[in-house]
Amino acid sequence: MLYRNPTAPIETRTRDLLSRMTLREKAGQLNQRMYGWNAYRRTPAGFELTEALYAETERFAGLGALYGLLRADAWSGVDHATGADAADSAALADLVQRHVVNESRLGIPALFVEEVPHGHMALDGTVLPVNLAVGATWDPELYEHAAAHAAAELRARGGHLALVSALDIARDPRWGRTEECFGEDPYLASRLTEALVRGMQGSSGDLFAPDKAPVVLKHFAGQGATIGGRNSAESELGPRELHEIHLPAARAGVRAGAAAVMAAYNEVDGMPCSGNRALLHDLLRRRWGFEGLVMADGLAVDRLARITGDPVSAGALALNSGVDLSLWDDGFTHLEEAVERGLVREETLDAAVIRVLRLKFRLGLFERPCPADQSPTPPTALAALGRDLSTALARAAVTLLHNNGGVLPIPSTATRIAVLGPHAATTAHQLGDYTAPQRPGTGTSVLDGLRRLAPPGVEITHARGCALTGDDTSGISEAVALADAADLAVLVLGGSSARTPETGFAANGAAQQTASEMTCGEGVDLAGLRLGDAQYELLRAASATGTPAVVVLVQGRPHAVPEAADLTAALLTVWYPGPWGGDAIAEVLLGHAEPAGRLPVSVPRSAAQLPVYYNHKDTEYGAYVDDSAEPLYSFGHGLSYTTFAYGPPRLGQHTVEVDVTNTGERRGRTVVQLYMRRLLTPVWPRTLELRAFRSLDLAPGECRTVRFPLGADQLAQVGADLETAVLPGTLEVRIAESARAALTAVPVLFRVDQNFTAPDATPL
Amino acid sequence: MLYRNPTAPIETRTRDLLSRMTLREKAGQLNQRMYGWNAYRRTPAGFELTEALYAETERFAGLGALYGLLRADAWSGVDHATGADAADSAALADLVQRHVVNESRLGIPALFVEEVPHGHMALDGTVLPVNLAVGATWDPELYEHAAAHAAAELRARGGHLALVSALDIARDPRWGRTEECFGEDPYLASRLTEALVRGMQGSSGDLFAPDKAPVVLKHFAGQGATIGGRNSAESELGPRELHEIHLPAARAGVRAGAAAVMAAYNEVDGMPCSGNRALLHDLLRRRWGFEGLVMADGLAVDRLARITGDPVSAGALALNSGVDLSLWDDGFTHLEEAVERGLVREETLDAAVIRVLRLKFRLGLFERPCPADQSPTPPTALAALGRDLSTALARAAVTLLHNNGGVLPIPSTATRIAVLGPHAATTAHQLGDYTAPQRPGTGTSVLDGLRRLAPPGVEITHARGCALTGDDTSGISEAVALADAADLAVLVLGGSSARTPETGFAANGAAQQTASEMTCGEGVDLAGLRLGDAQYELLRAASATGTPAVVVLVQGRPHAVPEAADLTAALLTVWYPGPWGGDAIAEVLLGHAEPAGRLPVSVPRSAAQLPVYYNHKDTEYGAYVDDSAEPLYSFGHGLSYTTFAYGPPRLGQHTVEVDVTNTGERRGRTVVQLYMRRLLTPVWPRTLELRAFRSLDLAPGECRTVRFPLGADQLAQVGADLETAVLPGTLEVRIAESARAALTAVPVLFRVDQNFTAPDATPL
Repeated sequence: MLYRNPTAPIETRTRDLLSRMTLREKAGQLNQRMYGWNAYRRTPAGFELTEALYAETERFAGLGALYGLLRADAWSGVDHATGADAADSAALADLVQRHVVNESRLGIPALFVEEVPHGHMALDGTVLPVNLAVGATWDPELYEHAAAHAAAELRARGGHLALVSALDIARDPRWGRTEECFGEDPYLASRLTEALVRGMQGSSGDLFAPDKAPVVLKHFAGQGATIGGRNSAESELGPRELHEIHLPAARAGVRAGAAAVMAAYNEVDGMPCSGNRALLHDLLRRRWGFEGLVMADGLAVDRLARITGDPVSAGALALNSGVDLSLWDDGFTHLEEAVERGLVREETLDAAVIRVLRLKFRLGLFERPCPADQSPTPPTALAALGRDLSTALARAAVTLLHNNGGVLPIPSTATRIAVLGPHAATTAHQLGDYTAPQRPGTGTSVLDGLRRLAPPGVEITHARGCALTGDDTSGISEAVALADAADLAVLVLGGSSARTPETGFAANGAAQQTASEMTCGEGVDLAGLRLGDAQYELLRAASATGTPAVVVLVQGRPHAVPEAADLTAALLTVWYPGPWGGDAIAEVLLGHAEPAGRLPVSVPRSAAQLPVYYNHKDTEYGAYVDDSAEPLYSFGHGLSYTTFAYGPPRLGQHTVEVDVTNTGERRGRTVVQLYMRRLLTPVWPRTLELRAFRSLDLAPGECRTVRFPLGADQLAQVGADLETAVLPGTLEVRIAESARAALTAVPVLFRVDQNFTAPDATPL
Repeated sequence: MLYRNPTAPIETRTRDLLSRMTLREKAGQLNQRMYGWNAYRRTPAGFELTEALYAETERFAGLGALYGLLRADAWSGVDHATGADAADSAALADLVQRHVVNESRLGIPALFVEEVPHGHMALDGTVLPVNLAVGATWDPELYEHAAAHAAAELRARGGHLALVSALDIARDPRWGRTEECFGEDPYLASRLTEALVRGMQGSSGDLFAPDKAPVVLKHFAGQGATIGGRNSAESELGPRELHEIHLPAARAGVRAGAAAVMAAYNEVDGMPCSGNRALLHDLLRRRWGFEGLVMADGLAVDRLARITGDPVSAGALALNSGVDLSLWDDGFTHLEEAVERGLVREETLDAAVIRVLRLKFRLGLFERPCPADQSPTPPTALAALGRDLSTALARAAVTLLHNNGGVLPIPSTATRIAVLGPHAATTAHQLGDYTAPQRPGTGTSVLDGLRRLAPPGVEITHARGCALTGDDTSGISEAVALADAADLAVLVLGGSSARTPETGFAANGAAQQTASEMTCGEGVDLAGLRLGDAQYELLRAASATGTPAVVVLVQGRPHAVPEAADLTAALLTVWYPGPWGGDAIAEVLLGHAEPAGRLPVSVPRSAAQLPVYYNHKDTEYGAYVDDSAEPLYSFGHGLSYTTFAYGPPRLGQHTVEVDVTNTGERRGRTVVQLYMRRLLTPVWPRTLELRAFRSLDLAPGECRTVRFPLGADQLAQVGADLETAVLPGTLEVRIAESARAALTAVPVLFRVDQNFTAPDATPL
């Protein structure tokens, strides 16, 4: 049988296999109906398969894909007592896969699809900082390493396909999934999406290496701009906004070779993405040439029955629109009937099946269906590297927003430090949504980090003061007393996406009735963007002691805490930094590491002034009568412990360069940001567009020249025809340390010619 | 000369005149550069013309149009001492017109263009309630009378063309111009826009009667949904949102024969409307067949120089995009040069000139250039009717939001009434933006109205308590003492769009530095939607006395005052009701009139939960974790002093009918609202769509059957191709007293056939 011949081309094998399949078997390949944790039961002897799995494989004469075999969290209810850990999950995957292959007449293995939003969300999986923290690093190279590691862990555990958030652009912080975004900017998100694809998939051509995992980029498209920041609500965006802001990361991911994308829940111009042929077929497949897989989001196909009338026609609409693989839906289980009723042409079904099978061939699953066959690195051997990478990302993401009088790094004169606040002594809320239960003792809190790293003789006291949510202020007096007696108070405040057993969940795993301390995560949208009242009270009371107060906000979205700007000596924000965030934060507080993070989102003063993203159109509006229209802190902002001077930009041959000098007393890092400001242009421009960035480490007094290319990546724009191209016009380049600084930076002006075909900016 | 022959067809006259004109004369016809109040000076003897007017008419060899000759407000600085009042403005118009005609080689008169957003905004012009109040009446017929009256006043004063807000849909109450919108709903706005056009223009075919005025419908398009509610900022809307929500009122106005539309400031998908050929040409002229005039908004053409580089090319872009007549711009003054430089074809210019000239012929200006030639009703004779119509609209707009225990109407047992609050005793803030200075004694405050209408023996006390803005609470104790001593406290709170001499203005007349009490109006965008702090304090303190408190909110937008829902016995909202609003409010409070108004916008709890419009897409989102996603009061809501029962809807032949019974003790008015809820449909539906409404006055116990047609107006939707048509599907009709009530109303379900060509809904 040709398809079994590993030396035959994948396309040949795929076609051969398809030609042997029944309609039922084909339909089976497009289904991913089960929650993976229902496929097994842990027994004293190991694992046993369930009747549910038997029924499923019998129903589909095999199994197309299995979601979340290794998922462990409050929703799935899987924990160390019931689930598969680092040591035994490969065996579980083996057991399931052998059963699937046996049940399949043609021996087709299943795809194991796993959540990898910030590390593999399985027991013992390395938890990385959330995407918003990755965005704050402005460091695609470091992220590529971390992504590669996550893929290796996934594959070592028996997983195949990694579901990774990457495409959602954070345009409204009220959205609970803001933490899953790389930020508000399409250029930054594009560079990080490329890094993700490169890191996870490698660049091995047709075949994935055994430590590489094909990615499913989530979500396509526009989900970061649903109305009111409401989860999976409609987006009202026009095509220009989509093309300029929401599509570039997907385009970059597709160009980098992403194996799959997930259609988003939200609608785009009248149709949810899973039923949106204009988006999935006309744009993604035809115009972009994407040949990979399109997966629907969980139960998104069945939602289409709202307008089609029944699950069969819903499945037909999704398939006809471009969805290949469903997730948990009933609709796709009826594809056989849909073909028989004439709702779907068998060729359409075949095309989807081919895309699923091709991925299985590319993964080598027919040759090595089970992890044991692949002999990758044993998962346990990966743990130490995972911790290093997670900590490195966390360290690079710590962002210093203000530092009055240079109160940070903590001076040696501070011998009594009070570490206060609900985040101070626990790692439970550093982890972000989706995270699996952690083994006791995993990770470090800020208190842990400071205790370990502070110089001998420094006395560190601690009180929690209050909970993350609610208005119980009974613990504040104890905290204030500690602050009063200290030289410095470190308040670790913020939010949480920690799911607990009390959390209620929707059928797709989004949180519904939130447990008391959950203020972020999927399903946890927040109108007011405020923290719990008691946290503000703690902040006010501690500040009132006169002891300098440093606030660390650990959060999954920019909460509105203007008080922290007004009342404190220094303010840091740390998007959920992962288990070892406490170390990273302590290192920065003590000056062992530089505050290297830069804001990937604008921080609003309040929800009332939304939106505040920096890259709005260049229109004449000023302020509200009762508030500014500007954010509290600008996109790109982040202070160092030293200072930098940027010279005026100089235009070269297809380049622009700038001299950057460390004008302070310490070595430090600056993120040099290149913004375009279009002057003469065929469509209305944004005030600023980030189009390049580079990190620079400089010793005191050191000056370095940074040279940026001025090529299509910098100059191209979405024209009147919605095609992205370099168009004639005049532009300014502004190079600065943040978007706000760019507004007053010295520009260099240049003209792009009518006949630009390659980078050839013409100095004026 | 053929063009002078009044019996020749207008098209013939226009072509003949055009053929005689120089390029300079043509360009002159497209300009409207002057502020009209700079054209004259008042002298003891009457009026004299200014050098500025002489220069202008010389420059353009005549004058195309003159903006705001009769405008009087804080921006223009015109008042009764310096401007033209009811008695003498026709003479002023005569003086200017005679000069223009004399200066024009071909004797072409000027168009006098005037602001008529809610009545003619001139000294002594009848001030009508603002559009949002008109929306609250749900009474197109009454509005048509009022619009007809405004047109008659305008023409009697010598004005020709009426600038009227109508097309902006109120999707974000943060926008300061929300008061200029008929509401959030496209159907309601469409019916009122039609009434406006019918009322002002009449239906006289080619020629306008001497008491009718061609309208310029403002603004086209999408200005009600700029980001953050920021004035003239970008809209990010997609074509579907535009077609479903923002374009229907314009389409209705065009169908009703509107003579002109004004291109909006905001951009639509990458281009400000004044430079947007897709909008002005492809859609408006080609697809809709609009043959009228397109005017640019003030200085909007010059703004295009931001991307074209200079005013000449900006003017060319606007003309080529479809703008015929500019407003105040420099750009259009260079059209001669633009033609000579080849930026504009002379045929394009000619087409615009034809549209201007055609309007002048339709107005009969060549035969009767001056008001004195037309002998319409003398303006002073119109005043009494104006007052009646303004009061009737105000009365119909008063909206009762809650009425605990039926505290209203004020019972005869209430013999001591305290009338409190900053709005209680003044008419200054009832008037809305754009309003001219009023003569002392014009209008009635709520205090005036109650004093006049309350039964003899009722003691009415008053204290202001606090100012509209700010946190000065020093006057509250006096007010609280009065409340404490009273049987009932009526608190008249709210906002203001009153421009004062201290207000600063942008070049286009939008407010910039706002005077202390201005919380609404053009340029006065509000992030937090809150009233001044002291008003809340007054509300809390007065409620705390235990005396039942009735709050009347006089406002230009839905401010966020959830306290008024919680703390008061009854709550009314009155969108700026005009000078005689005090009478209307008092009548309703005392039960002399029914509270007939219904909300034309959803009232939010806070700015943080925006948007809250009822006609969002039917997606699955629920609430925010920290707040509801539902408004405090729903679109369509408004209580009566009686109660009504709606029977189940019954489907007939192309109709649906419902029995409505007055189940209370009083005669009363209900607004029967028909909502569609689409089930099977080719594009994603909104939860509800208003598609018909009817007011009904019923005696206690009376039952009446209301029959609605089910035709294209009810059934049509915007298809996948963005064409509006009746498409096959299934639908529910729900008939209820508000959008919220419709969610739980008994539906009637029906199917629309494949081959629907005329109304033919098929009962299932």
